[in-house]
Amino acid sequence: MIRKGNRRGARPAPPSNEFLLGFSVGYDTILAVVLTARDVFQRVTADTRKSLIKFCNSCGAAVRFRIPEGDTLERAVCDACGAIQYQNPKIVVGCLPVYGERILLCKRAIEPRYGLWTLPAGFMENNESASEGAAREALEEANARVEIEDLYTVFSIPHISQVYMMFRARLLDAAVSPGAESLEVKLASEDEIPWDQLAFAMVKRTLEHYLEDRKRGVFVPRFGDIRPPNR
Amino acid sequence: MIRKGNRRGARPAPPSNEFLLGFSVGYDTILAVVLTARDVFQRVTADTRKSLIKFCNSCGAAVRFRIPEGDTLERAVCDACGAIQYQNPKIVVGCLPVYGERILLCKRAIEPRYGLWTLPAGFMENNESASEGAAREALEEANARVEIEDLYTVFSIPHISQVYMMFRARLLDAAVSPGAESLEVKLASEDEIPWDQLAFAMVKRTLEHYLEDRKRGVFVPRFGDIRPPNR
Repeated sequence: MIRKGNRRGARPAPPSNEFLLGFSVGYDTILAVVLTARDVFQRVTADTRKSLIKFCNSCGAAVRFRIPEGDTLERAVCDACGAIQYQNPKIVVGCLPVYGERILLCKRAIEPRYGLWTLPAGFMENNESASEGAAREALEEANARVEIEDLYTVFSIPHISQVYMMFRARLLDAAVSPGAESLEVKLASEDEIPWDQLAFAMVKRTLEHYLEDRKRGVFVPRFGDIRPPNR
Repeated sequence: MIRKGNRRGARPAPPSNEFLLGFSVGYDTILAVVLTARDVFQRVTADTRKSLIKFCNSCGAAVRFRIPEGDTLERAVCDACGAIQYQNPKIVVGCLPVYGERILLCKRAIEPRYGLWTLPAGFMENNESASEGAAREALEEANARVEIEDLYTVFSIPHISQVYMMFRARLLDAAVSPGAESLEVKLASEDEIPWDQLAFAMVKRTLEHYLEDRKRGVFVPRFGDIRPPNR
């Protein structure tokens, strides 16, 4: 399921999701990450302060942001019942479904990036595996039955606290059709990919890697970060 | 940070976390996942009903579990302010730090699996990349400065709604020491790995893959699911 920020349906997306799209692709390979804990802590703490959590979801009392005993980061702590509400990155799972030489693309019927093209992907749900979630999204967005193959690209997008996990997949049946979140679906040959109409940086990178690897005849998983252009 | 379920510190872990450890390793490669959406939805819906969310964290009103318009799964919906509280899988990031031929292991000072050996790993935080989180955990648990290399193993553990992302890493300095969550740390040669004293299935699998790949001289990323033995 693609959500608009933290919601589904027709409500406007929160601004944070726009980051996904609005920047040039900053794909850093994940080399040489030696950092002090403080660097990360400062960033994370700043983010947590902006949280919309105001009340405890266990007892309904007001929470306050403080560093719990034995922790290093500010959390939404309920002093009434002791519960702590953690906020963690979300996983988006998807796939690159291939039928012969052609790739399944979906034109988005929802914001953000309404009308632009994407690979089927959405938030991973509790109690499913990443590959199950990727297959589910293909079914939901394009009525596409796929056989999930290897995990192919993994992108961290720290400023929106999301991790994308994209699989290669074999489309089992060319009879695809738009699901509720797609205006249109198509099986695109390499020449037909609408490069200037792609919804997300991770879609562009995943397609580029795939086409490059297909020419070489070897598929190599890629891992990296996507950051806004000013970082 | 290793949390006990949804908490940190000295409180007891919720039962769900124990699943991580209590079953024999069911490592399925992620091939041929063709499933109906209904299968996943039923499982996910059942899980959501067990949620501990009772109150809206935006306005403090009582929530109820229902399928929001345009959605397919039950969520904690606040009818007072319209907020929906989603629950999604959590990411655990970690690494396999290598110094020469030896591998950094940590003896756990916290539950679950107090006293057993693990690779440094813990919950990924908002606003960090997966590799940054993996480096942070090595620093926190073993005062270990590492250079993160490639993503190496990714395991979905659907019944506890977690995804593990483990990186290969180069330990930059042999001077390691226990952090707050470790009783002891050591640089173990292959012969010194305490196979019968490992805390988690994912640690065993990651070490096995690594040693196998090192013998062959080629490191191949592995992706799969870990499920309880009765599935």
